[in-house]
Amino acid sequence: MDKGEEDVSNKQVLLRDYVYGSLKETDMVLSTGTTHLKAPQGSKAILVKNIYLACDPYSRELMKKGFLDDSIKPGSAIAGFGVAKVLDSDHPEFKVGDLVWGMTKWEEYSLINKPEFMFKIHNTDVPLSYYTGILGMPGLTAYACFFELCSPKKGDYLFVSSASGAVGQIVGQFAKLMGCYVVGSAGSDDKVDLLKNKFGFDEAFNYKKEPDFDAALKRYFPDGIDIYFENVGGKMLDAVLLNMRPHGRIAVCGMISQYNLEQHEGVHNLVNFIFKRIRMEGFVVYEHVHLYPKFLDLTLQYIKEGKMVFIEDIIEGLESGPSALIRLFAGHIVGKPVIRVSSE
Amino acid sequence: MDKGEEDVSNKQVLLRDYVYGSLKETDMVLSTGTTHLKAPQGSKAILVKNIYLACDPYSRELMKKGFLDDSIKPGSAIAGFGVAKVLDSDHPEFKVGDLVWGMTKWEEYSLINKPEFMFKIHNTDVPLSYYTGILGMPGLTAYACFFELCSPKKGDYLFVSSASGAVGQIVGQFAKLMGCYVVGSAGSDDKVDLLKNKFGFDEAFNYKKEPDFDAALKRYFPDGIDIYFENVGGKMLDAVLLNMRPHGRIAVCGMISQYNLEQHEGVHNLVNFIFKRIRMEGFVVYEHVHLYPKFLDLTLQYIKEGKMVFIEDIIEGLESGPSALIRLFAGHIVGKPVIRVSSE
Repeated sequence: MDKGEEDVSNKQVLLRDYVYGSLKETDMVLSTGTTHLKAPQGSKAILVKNIYLACDPYSRELMKKGFLDDSIKPGSAIAGFGVAKVLDSDHPEFKVGDLVWGMTKWEEYSLINKPEFMFKIHNTDVPLSYYTGILGMPGLTAYACFFELCSPKKGDYLFVSSASGAVGQIVGQFAKLMGCYVVGSAGSDDKVDLLKNKFGFDEAFNYKKEPDFDAALKRYFPDGIDIYFENVGGKMLDAVLLNMRPHGRIAVCGMISQYNLEQHEGVHNLVNFIFKRIRMEGFVVYEHVHLYPKFLDLTLQYIKEGKMVFIEDIIEGLESGPSALIRLFAGHIVGKPVIRVSSE
Repeated sequence: MDKGEEDVSNKQVLLRDYVYGSLKETDMVLSTGTTHLKAPQGSKAILVKNIYLACDPYSRELMKKGFLDDSIKPGSAIAGFGVAKVLDSDHPEFKVGDLVWGMTKWEEYSLINKPEFMFKIHNTDVPLSYYTGILGMPGLTAYACFFELCSPKKGDYLFVSSASGAVGQIVGQFAKLMGCYVVGSAGSDDKVDLLKNKFGFDEAFNYKKEPDFDAALKRYFPDGIDIYFENVGGKMLDAVLLNMRPHGRIAVCGMISQYNLEQHEGVHNLVNFIFKRIRMEGFVVYEHVHLYPKFLDLTLQYIKEGKMVFIEDIIEGLESGPSALIRLFAGHIVGKPVIRVSSE
């Protein structure tokens, strides 16, 4: 195709090669291509301008070969959730100017081949970036994983790891609103301060200052843990297993401490499953999208009433994305990192 | 109390000290005491003559300090399930001559302080020893753990480890009767032969001849595993996690490979929980005793119709118990070991 007047330059972040072990900034390559700003006729696709891109651990998982449908191949733009505006549409349900959120790519303009998996944004009286966070995939994840898998009851003792992350901060707030006792772990004193003073957790601790996770958990949960909302895996899970109460529930939402390891850490205390009748279950948000409307109504209401808050770290420019993802894994970002690709 | 005419000598197997690491025969001490053959007045106890004693991995777990209510202390007789006859009763629901099964001790005569936890035996047209096995705790364990925790459906692919053990052989038969594809692992060719030719498993393998459990499971489950009935833990669980199907269920009934280890093996593949949405749950039979009558009716019927079989290894004499328990852990016993303490 000739470069016509609707062709524009398109900054992208490409995956150099499948990534195993620690993610490095050089695994991601900044590049500039050309994109035709039209959705091909008959394609049922939409062409969007990306506004906000989520900086999620999930994007790093998609860099492994064979992960899900293996759709992200070396040389293609990194995949992730984002908020975008429709510039052209060949799909009857989307029109120019619509705001959408869902799976897109780390680039300025994206052709979305299956827009039926995107959500249209109708409520714009909250920050648009929230649709990468509290009103997007992390919010729905926290909601569905907590209410569907954890069987929560008022008074339950809940522990959430990676608690200041996008999912963790929301889970803790849902749990507090339900009347649970909530303790979170995070990797810096700033984050611990946020958990206690901004998100209303009962307690929080900096796991990097705890040489013995088991002792830390016994301090905060002298009577044990009913629900563990698992975001990290490895040694923390091992310590949690020693502190679960009978019929405790573990919802496995993520294991971020393991994603960068070629050989995952061994978990030694699984025998506790038997005598404590622990139930542990894995969670993938795709199976719960039918809950989105109910979740959205509830969460919008809580936000408007001031009952829930959300902390983001807005990072300017696509070119800042790779270093932000590295800093996320290093624990150097407070709140949910969001890349602002263009103005709204 | 003076030794009267109702005092008899009582052979016992005593626990020398709490046991950590590998169980040794010398951890158990054969001794002879004296027992008064009366249940004290007002005690609501019963005095029984033990007929069959189960040789269970469970008895070894009870030798650890702090296990359950820590009722088995050094110097006291080893605890375990057994079949017994009531010689004297101070409890209104039990009378002399009743046959019972439940928790008793490794000795000729036992005083049962809480007979309300014993089951009366009404069906005696099957071998009495079955009440330590297919009609006792292992049978109820297999039944309740399979039907209550595994959510089985016709056509499901089921894997059971330690499959020729008391619980394993029964689970496999229940699963076959429900229409599952059933594969078991065991530790000798004799046991594998039993699984395939006596219990009707679709396939079975000798794990001691498999250097790579993952490869073995891929051979027998090219399409993956829906249900893992976990009896062993450790490396086998790790390999199973690589082969689970989406929404697979793991019922943790035991982890016999771990009980004799001071430091349990690490399990590395728990990240599979997330993307496969695996559910794993621990099981303790005590919470399911209300199912016993239903289980008993069904299983008796299956036995009488020849649809279920059970293989035991009857070991003569209390003094043979300790070595039998050692051989059980070494995998040198085929079928369920039962100690015959006295004639019926």
